Amino acid sequence: MIRVGVIGTGMIGRDHIRRMTRVLNGVQVAAVTDVDADAARRVAEGIGATVHASGEDLIADDIVDAVVVCSWGPTHERYVLASIAAGKPVFCEKPLATTQDACVRIVEAEVAHGGRLVQVGYMRRYDLAYRALKTVVDSGVLGAPLMMHCAHRNPSVPPHYEKEMAITDTAVHEIDMVRWLFDEEIVATRVLVPRKSKNGGPLQDPLLLILEMAGGALVDVEISVNIRYGYDIRGEVVGEEGTAALGELGRVTIRRANQVATPVPVDWRERFVAAYDVEFQEWIDAIAAGGPPLGPSAWDGYAAAVVSDAGVEALQTGRRVEVSLVERPKLYHAEG
Amino acid sequence: MIRVGVIGTGMIGRDHIRRMTRVLNGVQVAAVTDVDADAARRVAEGIGATVHASGEDLIADDIVDAVVVCSWGPTHERYVLASIAAGKPVFCEKPLATTQDACVRIVEAEVAHGGRLVQVGYMRRYDLAYRALKTVVDSGVLGAPLMMHCAHRNPSVPPHYEKEMAITDTAVHEIDMVRWLFDEEIVATRVLVPRKSKNGGPLQDPLLLILEMAGGALVDVEISVNIRYGYDIRGEVVGEEGTAALGELGRVTIRRANQVATPVPVDWRERFVAAYDVEFQEWIDAIAAGGPPLGPSAWDGYAAAVVSDAGVEALQTGRRVEVSLVERPKLYHAEG
Amino acid sequence: MIRVGVIGTGMIGRDHIRRMTRVLNGVQVAAVTDVDADAARRVAEGIGATVHASGEDLIADDIVDAVVVCSWGPTHERYVLASIAAGKPVFCEKPLATTQDACVRIVEAEVAHGGRLVQVGYMRRYDLAYRALKTVVDSGVLGAPLMMHCAHRNPSVPPHYEKEMAITDTAVHEIDMVRWLFDEEIVATRVLVPRKSKNGGPLQDPLLLILEMAGGALVDVEISVNIRYGYDIRGEVVGEEGTAALGELGRVTIRRANQVATPVPVDWRERFVAAYDVEFQEWIDAIAAGGPPLGPSAWDGYAAAVVSDAGVEALQTGRRVEVSLVERPKLYHAEG
Amino acid sequence: MIRVGVIGTGMIGRDHIRRMTRVLNGVQVAAVTDVDADAARRVAEGIGATVHASGEDLIADDIVDAVVVCSWGPTHERYVLASIAAGKPVFCEKPLATTQDACVRIVEAEVAHGGRLVQVGYMRRYDLAYRALKTVVDSGVLGAPLMMHCAHRNPSVPPHYEKEMAITDTAVHEIDMVRWLFDEEIVATRVLVPRKSKNGGPLQDPLLLILEMAGGALVDVEISVNIRYGYDIRGEVVGEEGTAALGELGRVTIRRANQVATPVPVDWRERFVAAYDVEFQEWIDAIAAGGPPLGPSAWDGYAAAVVSDAGVEALQTGRRVEVSLVERPKLYHAEG
Repeated sequence: MIRVGVIGTGMIGRDHIRRMTRVLNGVQVAAVTDVDADAARRVAEGIGATVHASGEDLIADDIVDAVVVCSWGPTHERYVLASIAAGKPVFCEKPLATTQDACVRIVEAEVAHGGRLVQVGYMRRYDLAYRALKTVVDSGVLGAPLMMHCAHRNPSVPPHYEKEMAITDTAVHEIDMVRWLFDEEIVATRVLVPRKSKNGGPLQDPLLLILEMAGGALVDVEISVNIRYGYDIRGEVVGEEGTAALGELGRVTIRRANQVATPVPVDWRERFVAAYDVEFQEWIDAIAAGGPPLGPSAWDGYAAAVVSDAGVEALQTGRRVEVSLVERPKLYHAEG
Repeated sequence: MIRVGVIGTGMIGRDHIRRMTRVLNGVQVAAVTDVDADAARRVAEGIGATVHASGEDLIADDIVDAVVVCSWGPTHERYVLASIAAGKPVFCEKPLATTQDACVRIVEAEVAHGGRLVQVGYMRRYDLAYRALKTVVDSGVLGAPLMMHCAHRNPSVPPHYEKEMAITDTAVHEIDMVRWLFDEEIVATRVLVPRKSKNGGPLQDPLLLILEMAGGALVDVEISVNIRYGYDIRGEVVGEEGTAALGELGRVTIRRANQVATPVPVDWRERFVAAYDVEFQEWIDAIAAGGPPLGPSAWDGYAAAVVSDAGVEALQTGRRVEVSLVERPKLYHAEG
Repeated sequence: MIRVGVIGTGMIGRDHIRRMTRVLNGVQVAAVTDVDADAARRVAEGIGATVHASGEDLIADDIVDAVVVCSWGPTHERYVLASIAAGKPVFCEKPLATTQDACVRIVEAEVAHGGRLVQVGYMRRYDLAYRALKTVVDSGVLGAPLMMHCAHRNPSVPPHYEKEMAITDTAVHEIDMVRWLFDEEIVATRVLVPRKSKNGGPLQDPLLLILEMAGGALVDVEISVNIRYGYDIRGEVVGEEGTAALGELGRVTIRRANQVATPVPVDWRERFVAAYDVEFQEWIDAIAAGGPPLGPSAWDGYAAAVVSDAGVEALQTGRRVEVSLVERPKLYHAEG
Repeated sequence: MIRVGVIGTGMIGRDHIRRMTRVLNGVQVAAVTDVDADAARRVAEGIGATVHASGEDLIADDIVDAVVVCSWGPTHERYVLASIAAGKPVFCEKPLATTQDACVRIVEAEVAHGGRLVQVGYMRRYDLAYRALKTVVDSGVLGAPLMMHCAHRNPSVPPHYEKEMAITDTAVHEIDMVRWLFDEEIVATRVLVPRKSKNGGPLQDPLLLILEMAGGALVDVEISVNIRYGYDIRGEVVGEEGTAALGELGRVTIRRANQVATPVPVDWRERFVAAYDVEFQEWIDAIAAGGPPLGPSAWDGYAAAVVSDAGVEALQTGRRVEVSLVERPKLYHAEG
């Protein structure tokens, strides 16, 4: 039974606590902490967990085998570094850290530690549709992949959503996904700006993000964050001999009112709830097996940060922006 | 240019006249007649056709190369027999005749004539989806066909629609279609009666018609004639190695209001308009080539009548009713 | 943590043990037994479970909170009755028992106990596609359900598979599913027998099973157990205003070699693995909450047995066979 | 009966002659000509048409009511101008002419004539799927259209196919289609160049063409001309409230060999044969009604040429290239 300490008991933290307490196998939440101590206490009561005054205290506690970081983004670096210093596996919700430099510091700390401890919360790699897509691409039946067409559609975004978040919060999932799917770095980005939707208020919405892969493949990502009709994630890889796309996934087909229709998910929770479960279970299983985490690494978190920054610059300048990464440490080489 | 005489200028007759006048190639409507002489005259004026006082006059007219019978069902026998007597090709809208005996008289007349002159208006054989389905079945990739599941759904039927018409007017299209698709006679029928739809008023609607093919394949046909949502024709052949079904055929896919949807036709005109065009063009081309008609024969019209009668008896008695056909004349043997 | 004792460590028993040990939350396998004591010991070693010499011993053990019966069908009655006698919740793989009388004895024992303890392993009720289908049906948007078209297709069956198993082993899943979906008993069955597939050897395969629901709805079930192309479960409910069907569920759409294609599952494990997980998790959660099990009851197991027997008689005689159930005890009334 | 003269009896010319002779209504081919006089003679014999020594002679012949130009591209200008000079309707296969200047001369000649005589052969506007898509977009249910994603996929191209033809021969269909669908000019183009397919030999294949519409909508077009799996034309319009896409159109769905599959057309003939028929029938009907042609105009042909040139420059330079059109004459204003 892996005993986990959770830093941050906001919405996402509580959801992961629920997951580890009521859904997953081989794990219990042993300790929690939050900047709002009362909130942490309320969560802890229900599950018999210890409450700590700080993330550092929680990380240091011997009853904590592994750490989950769900706190405010700017605090991620601190807690991840502390977990590495304590030699404890740490699952950090995205982003790994809020600056490239912070990500580099984490990568360097992990390299100095000499083995992987960090996993970053990019859950699409655990979605069964994406996994089926990757299996087809990797099988070679399409020939080499040359292009990918993606769409990331949200029915709406909250009022605090700012222009750059279309890249840093929304498309960052595609940024991680294509690095994993193609098993290659992204080398350049562009953002093309169509006519604005009236639904987006002051936002520039939608956008067309272009990603250039190291091997030359070209990825286009429609980002529509106020499209009303549902949460819809689409992706089609174009190879030399054919294409493969995420399936439609509708559980039921309704013939009514002159239509054949299947429902679209209302939000990302509905679409990816199973992926979160798989993500955490595999993380726990890897720790229980005594091995390193097998999911998105600190390097992946760093690369996502650099590509995001390039995407934001591309959006702000209208120019093609190249992605410049530090040298990839050996620790992160043989990863699939 | 084939010169056609049309008997009956009601809704269906006028539609075929429009088709021959404005859509098809190599044909003109040279003469028309109708029990309502004024109606015939109005139609004739627009297209420069001769008006005849009777079907018999029209058939006898030398300017008529071929006859199309769209009059009231009980008159079909008379006009088809007159056309055979005149040695002229005749296209008869379904039914060929309103009794089995009348159908036999037509078959005997055509056999006595010594060559095919009659084609019956079963248009499904000309629908591109059914043709694609037959091509797959005939290719053998499914192994032997063992079952077929069909649905014949109408949004609503007119007030004069009576219980038995579910077989004689509606499912008769499936009766002809499966004889053609399987290239076999139907040997028995049953009708199973589910709970009634509130939309059907006094009608027993829907029904489940079961057809047994000579080779042992079993066909089930859902007949729903008040299902509101659209006109929907479905069919799936189950073979030893797999199945083949009519495609969904939606021309456009709309993502809106939490659904991915494709439209369903509103009625049979929308669904089968192209099939009617192909049916008539092939009939005209066959006549122009000097050959016999290649479509549904008098024998097919007779067999449909016998199976319909068996279906009606099955509906009325709740019993399995065998189909008893006269011996098939040689004239109708080698047909596809 | 619910401590479960598993009777029967064959294929299905080991799979449930894996599920409870490595996948599910809040459960551990505390004890096992099998007629093959060595097999039981090997399984127990890996998970630190106690091995018992008999099912009765296992049921009596205080460390066992709840029992899972995966042994040979003819032993089910004995272990379920012993569990009831011990006042312990028992999950029994289908069938509940191998005769109607045995099922009645279980029902009577549970009624005498005064509360539900028994759940039977019909997992389709836990499949997300079936649940979505039931949600649509229950919402009323289709009007009253009048018919249902089902297909149960297996690529192949093992050599020991006998004629009657098409009903008792295969279609029994549809038998339970439609009782749950329509929330009604089945009142009569028929079996129609098409031409045989060459792939089925001596078997009569496929079959068309007809089920009549208490409210008059009619269900047809194609049972094809050697159809080669994959494991394919389909269902479409026909209502007064439209229909709803299980979705296609393909995770990936491949355009290659002149086709747009989605994969079909190779077997029932692939199709229903998630349903088994949900089924067991909900069972465990119900027990942990101190309540009765919420899944298929002893009554459902009894009804499935009676309908199966009627289906077998219908297959053997070619006749419509009515289903005759004992009076439904109050204990099983308000169930969804 | 409209009497048509056909200039050019190559593959496409013969196909249109077949169409007018054997498929369409109200038209006959009265005269033909070709640089290969023998070829013209052979075609004429079968259909009883006059053979002319030159296109000019054919245009001048009184038995020719309307002209169809299917000759070599560089001759189009000459024959279209001659037809305008003769005051005869002329259908010119794409391109209208091979240079922008030539297109301008045609536009000026038609304006001087004072009424439309020219129609250019962009057949997608006549495809039922595109028409259904336009109906949805025009209905406003999607809100304003903001983006469109297209793919134009060919299984292979002939050896003489050159790099620029991906724009001028292939994507030019999308160029015309989006102008029609959005009812707006294209104002700029870009071409993004992914990794090359090994199937394309020396070609740069595939390409991603970006078109900017006057109203700000952004269109991306994947051009893959050696993708082997089939001829596949896709398009999805993204609006403020949802999207609409061309349907899948498969006539049959085959379940076999662990797949649910629908066929993809093998080439453009199969995909667009019906669109060609509709295109010509509507052209003939418009002429027969004494009105101007209603299809793609000389202005559309000119605009396609200018956008194509911009696309080629974008491909060659890697830069965004603006589209600069002469002022649109009043004659071409109120067109849909």
